[in-house]
Amino acid sequence: MRPWEANIRQVVPYVPGDQPGGDRLIKLNTNENPYPPSPGAIKALRELETDRLRKYPDPAASVLVEALAGYYGVEADQVFVGVGSDDVIAMSFLTFFNSDKPVMFPDITYSFYKVWADLYRIPYETPALDGDFNIIPEDYEKENGGVIFPNPNAPTGIYMPLEQVEGIIKANQDVVVIVDEAYIDFAGRSALELIGRYENLLVVQTFSKSRSMAGMRIGFAIGNRRLIKALNDVKYSYNSYTMNLPSIVMGTESVRDKAYFKETTDKIIATRERAKKRLSGLGFTYPDSRANFIFASHPRVPAYKLFEALKQEQIYVRYFGGERLCDSLRISIGSDEEMEELFAFLERYLKDFS
Amino acid sequence: MRPWEANIRQVVPYVPGDQPGGDRLIKLNTNENPYPPSPGAIKALRELETDRLRKYPDPAASVLVEALAGYYGVEADQVFVGVGSDDVIAMSFLTFFNSDKPVMFPDITYSFYKVWADLYRIPYETPALDGDFNIIPEDYEKENGGVIFPNPNAPTGIYMPLEQVEGIIKANQDVVVIVDEAYIDFAGRSALELIGRYENLLVVQTFSKSRSMAGMRIGFAIGNRRLIKALNDVKYSYNSYTMNLPSIVMGTESVRDKAYFKETTDKIIATRERAKKRLSGLGFTYPDSRANFIFASHPRVPAYKLFEALKQEQIYVRYFGGERLCDSLRISIGSDEEMEELFAFLERYLKDFS
Repeated sequence: MRPWEANIRQVVPYVPGDQPGGDRLIKLNTNENPYPPSPGAIKALRELETDRLRKYPDPAASVLVEALAGYYGVEADQVFVGVGSDDVIAMSFLTFFNSDKPVMFPDITYSFYKVWADLYRIPYETPALDGDFNIIPEDYEKENGGVIFPNPNAPTGIYMPLEQVEGIIKANQDVVVIVDEAYIDFAGRSALELIGRYENLLVVQTFSKSRSMAGMRIGFAIGNRRLIKALNDVKYSYNSYTMNLPSIVMGTESVRDKAYFKETTDKIIATRERAKKRLSGLGFTYPDSRANFIFASHPRVPAYKLFEALKQEQIYVRYFGGERLCDSLRISIGSDEEMEELFAFLERYLKDFS
Repeated sequence: MRPWEANIRQVVPYVPGDQPGGDRLIKLNTNENPYPPSPGAIKALRELETDRLRKYPDPAASVLVEALAGYYGVEADQVFVGVGSDDVIAMSFLTFFNSDKPVMFPDITYSFYKVWADLYRIPYETPALDGDFNIIPEDYEKENGGVIFPNPNAPTGIYMPLEQVEGIIKANQDVVVIVDEAYIDFAGRSALELIGRYENLLVVQTFSKSRSMAGMRIGFAIGNRRLIKALNDVKYSYNSYTMNLPSIVMGTESVRDKAYFKETTDKIIATRERAKKRLSGLGFTYPDSRANFIFASHPRVPAYKLFEALKQEQIYVRYFGGERLCDSLRISIGSDEEMEELFAFLERYLKDFS
């Protein structure tokens, strides 16, 4: 080892999922939206005055912040935006979790929480989900340095009723509680309802799933203005200009395009509910998902075997492996046509499988 | 103070410069390029397949990385890309400067270095520039945790000859040395020539100045493949998908558009050289800038007064204040027309000033 290598931060890097290419493939592995971004957002990109690109973007992304504030009925100083919800949450770890006490999140959850805690050398504890993959709220009633969990949880899709979410926040008013609502638009009531009552609550959402804009990298957080100011202070200490102009203008128009948002979200929910019935009919079991994916296992077929067989057919789903996850595949909800191709293959495959 | 506020990271946030709006103003305050992004880059944006935006972008931004590798004659695994050079350098601080010994950078330099060191709690030392604003290479010949400096330096514009740059790298082979070349395309020989000889050298550049794409947020680093791997490991531990699709495709086409790059860069250099003569003729003095700005002071007019008078005329330049900077204004090089308006005003103003 060279001397300069001694000062390099040691991390176990997160390995991003496959992004396979090709026209014929069916991509149900990264929870992307099967529908394109809203027409208003696309129009904004097409009509972007490209001479503006030579200038720095607005560091506060004010038009986007104001559109979000208007949409969610909060003040602009209660909204923080970042380069995807990963950027928003990573910055939240750095900003809010400066404690010697452990931050708490479920043992089975979004795998990045552990990576960020390691990156910033934040201690953490991971209470186990119960036998049906539910978060046990009582586990979070102990001294800690902060709490974060997704609702719905990943990769199970299980939605925790808002009363239970509130219970966790209520029990942890001395620390910041982050509810990661990447999938909430497919699920039910958001913890945003509680923002006014709990000043330690930060709710994080993303444009990558329900708003069909994973390729644009937009995430946001809403909370008490002191939380948002602290996040902005750290953000301005890291990189003042994180969100580029196309993201700002497309994000803004996407928020304004309410009808398209509702239409595509409703379509995905309907496809998901039909998919549940089809999967049940084929013998699969799964936690009751309220997200845009289903975490399904089959009593007869090892998940890894099915994963490989699907891949052969150019149908990509996500296999995690690991003790409690290795029996299941996470299947993103695609278009009805894509799901039909999936089911047609599963029917053939299961008939032949012995 | 509420209990949850105790765990908030305390920072002194960087305050980004004004981004005044309006059509008639002359914006010479943030070193933006007066010319639009390359025609190839604009075409790529116009023709972007918007259906791709629903999917996550390539986390490795491979097409952009390969275009840069080809352009600079290095291997793809020697190139790291990020959301502006601020993102690249902030991540470099986090990755490479894990030492109890102080990181070293000049006392007068890009003001963000201090902010990042504070953010990540990295100790630092700031040797003073000499009386003519030059970096004194010998000051960096002592034990330290890493070295970073811009070449040309900011906000002076002074270019350090490559032999001196090499001297600093040579004297610091036990730590990572970062040469921040945000303005190098307006200056002269790049430290990229030295990459093959010094495995502890990281050279950082940006698309925000010479490539007219501040609004797109693209920066990059080139170095030994072990440095680049360490940066990527940390990046993938922070946010896998930082660079959005429009940035990847526009950045790639910008690199391919060599003729436009040379043409606009040459024009800015020529305008700068004419501006130096005009400023001298008006009685201004300045360090000999090799960047796309001039750091000028006038023996008769206090800089702040001139700054305010220019602002009244809708001509924006940058005033820093502080002990050694308060006599000067940083004037970005605009188009010839913009510079003519500036000089016309300065002539009138100085004639009346008593």
